[in-house]
Amino acid sequence: MKILVINPIGHSKWDNQDKKIYESFVSPGTTVDVVSLPQGPITVESPEAYAEVIPLVIKRVLEYYEKYDGFIINCFLDPGVKLLRGIIRKPVIGPCEASMSLASLITDKIGIVSVGSALWMIEDHIRSLGYANRLIGLEGIDLGVLDLDKDLELTISKIVERSKKLIDRGAEVIVLGCTGFAGLARKIEEHINIPVIDPAGAAVKILESLIKLNIYNPRAATIIKQ
Amino acid sequence: MKILVINPIGHSKWDNQDKKIYESFVSPGTTVDVVSLPQGPITVESPEAYAEVIPLVIKRVLEYYEKYDGFIINCFLDPGVKLLRGIIRKPVIGPCEASMSLASLITDKIGIVSVGSALWMIEDHIRSLGYANRLIGLEGIDLGVLDLDKDLELTISKIVERSKKLIDRGAEVIVLGCTGFAGLARKIEEHINIPVIDPAGAAVKILESLIKLNIYNPRAATIIKQ
Amino acid sequence: MKILVINPIGHSKWDNQDKKIYESFVSPGTTVDVVSLPQGPITVESPEAYAEVIPLVIKRVLEYYEKYDGFIINCFLDPGVKLLRGIIRKPVIGPCEASMSLASLITDKIGIVSVGSALWMIEDHIRSLGYANRLIGLEGIDLGVLDLDKDLELTISKIVERSKKLIDRGAEVIVLGCTGFAGLARKIEEHINIPVIDPAGAAVKILESLIKLNIYNPRAATIIKQ
Amino acid sequence: MKILVINPIGHSKWDNQDKKIYESFVSPGTTVDVVSLPQGPITVESPEAYAEVIPLVIKRVLEYYEKYDGFIINCFLDPGVKLLRGIIRKPVIGPCEASMSLASLITDKIGIVSVGSALWMIEDHIRSLGYANRLIGLEGIDLGVLDLDKDLELTISKIVERSKKLIDRGAEVIVLGCTGFAGLARKIEEHINIPVIDPAGAAVKILESLIKLNIYNPRAATIIKQ
Amino acid sequence: MKILVINPIGHSKWDNQDKKIYESFVSPGTTVDVVSLPQGPITVESPEAYAEVIPLVIKRVLEYYEKYDGFIINCFLDPGVKLLRGIIRKPVIGPCEASMSLASLITDKIGIVSVGSALWMIEDHIRSLGYANRLIGLEGIDLGVLDLDKDLELTISKIVERSKKLIDRGAEVIVLGCTGFAGLARKIEEHINIPVIDPAGAAVKILESLIKLNIYNPRAATIIKQ
Amino acid sequence: MKILVINPIGHSKWDNQDKKIYESFVSPGTTVDVVSLPQGPITVESPEAYAEVIPLVIKRVLEYYEKYDGFIINCFLDPGVKLLRGIIRKPVIGPCEASMSLASLITDKIGIVSVGSALWMIEDHIRSLGYANRLIGLEGIDLGVLDLDKDLELTISKIVERSKKLIDRGAEVIVLGCTGFAGLARKIEEHINIPVIDPAGAAVKILESLIKLNIYNPRAATIIKQ
Repeated sequence: MKILVINPIGHSKWDNQDKKIYESFVSPGTTVDVVSLPQGPITVESPEAYAEVIPLVIKRVLEYYEKYDGFIINCFLDPGVKLLRGIIRKPVIGPCEASMSLASLITDKIGIVSVGSALWMIEDHIRSLGYANRLIGLEGIDLGVLDLDKDLELTISKIVERSKKLIDRGAEVIVLGCTGFAGLARKIEEHINIPVIDPAGAAVKILESLIKLNIYNPRAATIIKQ
Repeated sequence: MKILVINPIGHSKWDNQDKKIYESFVSPGTTVDVVSLPQGPITVESPEAYAEVIPLVIKRVLEYYEKYDGFIINCFLDPGVKLLRGIIRKPVIGPCEASMSLASLITDKIGIVSVGSALWMIEDHIRSLGYANRLIGLEGIDLGVLDLDKDLELTISKIVERSKKLIDRGAEVIVLGCTGFAGLARKIEEHINIPVIDPAGAAVKILESLIKLNIYNPRAATIIKQ
Repeated sequence: MKILVINPIGHSKWDNQDKKIYESFVSPGTTVDVVSLPQGPITVESPEAYAEVIPLVIKRVLEYYEKYDGFIINCFLDPGVKLLRGIIRKPVIGPCEASMSLASLITDKIGIVSVGSALWMIEDHIRSLGYANRLIGLEGIDLGVLDLDKDLELTISKIVERSKKLIDRGAEVIVLGCTGFAGLARKIEEHINIPVIDPAGAAVKILESLIKLNIYNPRAATIIKQ
Repeated sequence: MKILVINPIGHSKWDNQDKKIYESFVSPGTTVDVVSLPQGPITVESPEAYAEVIPLVIKRVLEYYEKYDGFIINCFLDPGVKLLRGIIRKPVIGPCEASMSLASLITDKIGIVSVGSALWMIEDHIRSLGYANRLIGLEGIDLGVLDLDKDLELTISKIVERSKKLIDRGAEVIVLGCTGFAGLARKIEEHINIPVIDPAGAAVKILESLIKLNIYNPRAATIIKQ
Repeated sequence: MKILVINPIGHSKWDNQDKKIYESFVSPGTTVDVVSLPQGPITVESPEAYAEVIPLVIKRVLEYYEKYDGFIINCFLDPGVKLLRGIIRKPVIGPCEASMSLASLITDKIGIVSVGSALWMIEDHIRSLGYANRLIGLEGIDLGVLDLDKDLELTISKIVERSKKLIDRGAEVIVLGCTGFAGLARKIEEHINIPVIDPAGAAVKILESLIKLNIYNPRAATIIKQ
Repeated sequence: MKILVINPIGHSKWDNQDKKIYESFVSPGTTVDVVSLPQGPITVESPEAYAEVIPLVIKRVLEYYEKYDGFIINCFLDPGVKLLRGIIRKPVIGPCEASMSLASLITDKIGIVSVGSALWMIEDHIRSLGYANRLIGLEGIDLGVLDLDKDLELTISKIVERSKKLIDRGAEVIVLGCTGFAGLARKIEEHINIPVIDPAGAAVKILESLIKLNIYNPRAATIIKQ
């Protein structure tokens, strides 16, 4: 099983690190490659950046279409994912919908911690996915995506602080609402006593499930349009 | 009051005609300009084309931001409209949300007639706008957007036939679900006895309302980000 | 375009002032007349008064039916509006549904400030219109309708205080939930930094839109029943 | 326990017959009186008649307030019922809400058969009560209320025919959606094999329950306002 | 009219007391018997106990099927009630659904006070009944079911304290969410000024209504399957 | 990773076959065991059987709790699954919720084909899971569970026929709504051109995902209660 993770950004700085994180979640026999875009924004934190990457992500998937069994768009806003379901007949998944889908299986009191710059876009996305009534709350930490790995302990402590706020309001699971938080779930769990869902982990496990079960996108009129 | 209508396509073939249609709906004192994109798809009928125009529409609005009081994105999929609400503090509106908003004021049994090529994208959009439970049905005619004005009588007769099908299922208003149908509402109404909503007309009347009442987008952090 | 505003009360004390407020919102070419009821309550703040005016409003509309293109029932409870849609084939609108409709176009986090005497009736009405899940909150000021213009600065400061409470809870737009607040939106906006929707303004702009687009009430079996 | 049934019409032609029907449902120890309005429409089949009776019903309840333990407004549109909950602290009930409430306890596939003249008003009422998603369908027979008892066999056969149509679409219970059908449930059940709910029976049993359990309307600020 | 109340527990300690409480609510002519299970848990406060009693309750109803006109399963989790609707053609009711049904008739701001040990099961049940959007909140007192009658004044004061918390959040009616609270409604009402619904009272009044109106369960394919 | 599949029936006739089917879906390194109940019904097709197995399933999971990383209850009604989430802190999953979860990721037009004997129980379960508004329809074939493997070609042709009916109504994915259909998805797909979801496959892939990501049930107060 061959999976391609697309970083919807215009640089490959995080590709190797993301490859390691994704590989930590795959089943034996699955290989993961990570590519970014030939051009694009540095991060996806603004509506302009989000808009910019939507068509670029689609083009990138189509370039690699033949070589992979399924695709992950590595951003919690799931850019292009829904539209790709009308274009190709192979599974495509985003970390947000995958995380919410797994979280919903254990509770309907979900808390999300993300970065603070674009919470309304996440909230809109959650609503359009149909999970609004399962959302206890959405909290952002006051760090930009570029700053997340500058002081990892600080990042973790901020996520923990926001998670506790959500737990006080009734959250029974915390979803890490930014792919920049990928790989941190186990560390967050050391500080709180409810499960924490890793968005990269959720995406890759769900994608493997769809590939194995041959669940493709039924809307695409042809195998591929290029 | 100065309004800019953006045709989210890469040619200006329909700009003059659309300008006339929009001018037929404006209040005295409102001027309308129509521009298309410097580059882009010929029509917005596929998910690829829809994705492509989202960032282009945002750029186009930002280029003209200073000169106009409000903006209409002239496509029934409302591309870029929701994201623009997080970018600029001037009103932006799309024909679909405007039409559904007015239709909802007179009934909760709405029928939409569009072109057949991308009904699932419209359906998804209606759902994300929160109007799914007011939708009696969504029907498409079997003509592409480029063919609509080749034989206008044929186009009208096909729209009428689909409208009647929706009326049989209980529709109390017909929304013309394609900006290529703009200007045809009165002609369709000659054949059916319920109101028909023109998407261009709805968009411009709602935009004038928002401008007059100073209802801007509250999410944009600054007046404009460029 | 000729519009009739009906004050659903038994005196004409506010008719002239309301005419000026409504005229401040209309498009060039629109004329507005304001009439009250031949008899009726002094204000519509109790369930008894609300019930009393429902049939009186319908009668009043039917008396003036021929002379106007559309009708506004000038009370935030929209008395008689929904039933009139089954009686006449000309547009009728209420300030509440018009305001909520426009507010919904820019956000789903709406706050309403009204007078405190009958909040549950407004809440019920919002729910029956289908906007309950977009309501951040409904707050009332502790002044009766008759006292609103006694000390306008006091009234404004009370509305501002309640608006700020709603903004703290996440409201992204404030709807003025009483037609006695009509004309105050701009003054409230000086104190808060989100849009404020004037109920009279919303009603008249939406009504002009419906008239211009020929969107009438489809349920009425005949043009008019008298 | 003393119950007053108010016929929201301007004549007392059906009062005796309704008294007998209601008495057939009450528990031992409950007495029922039936009064109509001093003036009012002959039947409540049009939006104008519905509007007219709303304030009249409220006045009638207030006139008899002291003498009874609870009140039924004998019309399937439940005119005035919701508003009365903000006026008096004694229970008031309508046949529609009572019937839907009991029907919902055994299934969420409810069919309603009513008279054809004002189905949209019933549909609106069902929606505002929150039962829309439990409604399989609403069918009307082509007889006016005044004609129902002219040929009772004909009336029954028409109700049965409509009920069967709803059963074909999945209905698991039939609600008789007109108080003019009161007393016919058992006869309808002879022809179909699912339960049929009598609107008068439902109203009186629910009202007795509310009185016995001392469940009054919490919104009314004082015991009574006159 | 003969009603059987089934205590879904393995001892008959509370049967006599429950019989008296139920008898205090019945109409003249109704007789109530109370039986518990031949074996089963001491209380139903854990998911294991809830699961255990579901098939036992069904068996118990079937044993007594011939002798009674209707059945109440005397636990606020309504164990087995929904499934029994597919097995027998006589009415079966649970205290939770009955209480919520009556509460919904007077308000959509319902507060529930229960015991603290299994609030999530009640919350799940409320949601599956479709009342989640009418729930202001669900609060538990820190006493086990076995301790409720040890110090009745303490129990009452704890329920009152929780009720007041719910009233502060907007509750307009309090539902006593544990059949161990049956008989206390009037005493709680002395301390708060909104109605309090007794779960046993609600169940028996609704069941009498269903029996009187011949509203049985339509899904059961045969009269009885044993 | 060690998974236990529990057949909620009182015989082990299908255990070996189910083991093979489940093994065909697992990732390398996952072992699957299948056990049935020491006693119990032959199939779970009636509400009595469904009730009977709920406590037995819970007991069976607790017996094997230490030895496995997660549990599947192999019946499309997911008996005991929700309650087990309040008892143990290891993941438990049912085929229905797993299938619906994966189906929802690719479309909101889901069709289910099951056996005809207990469709209302499945429908109730789908509703309580929150997927009702994504359900195009639920169809049953006229074969009992015991007859499914008597003539496999007949079974397949009946499932295909029902699937086509659902596709005609708009279904974009077919969920096989009976674990007796496990292993047939690929064969059904040969006859229709949309994806078919295998309930056993969905359950095991989702369970592996939950185990790998350490997503446990947050409600259980202790690791295990026995």
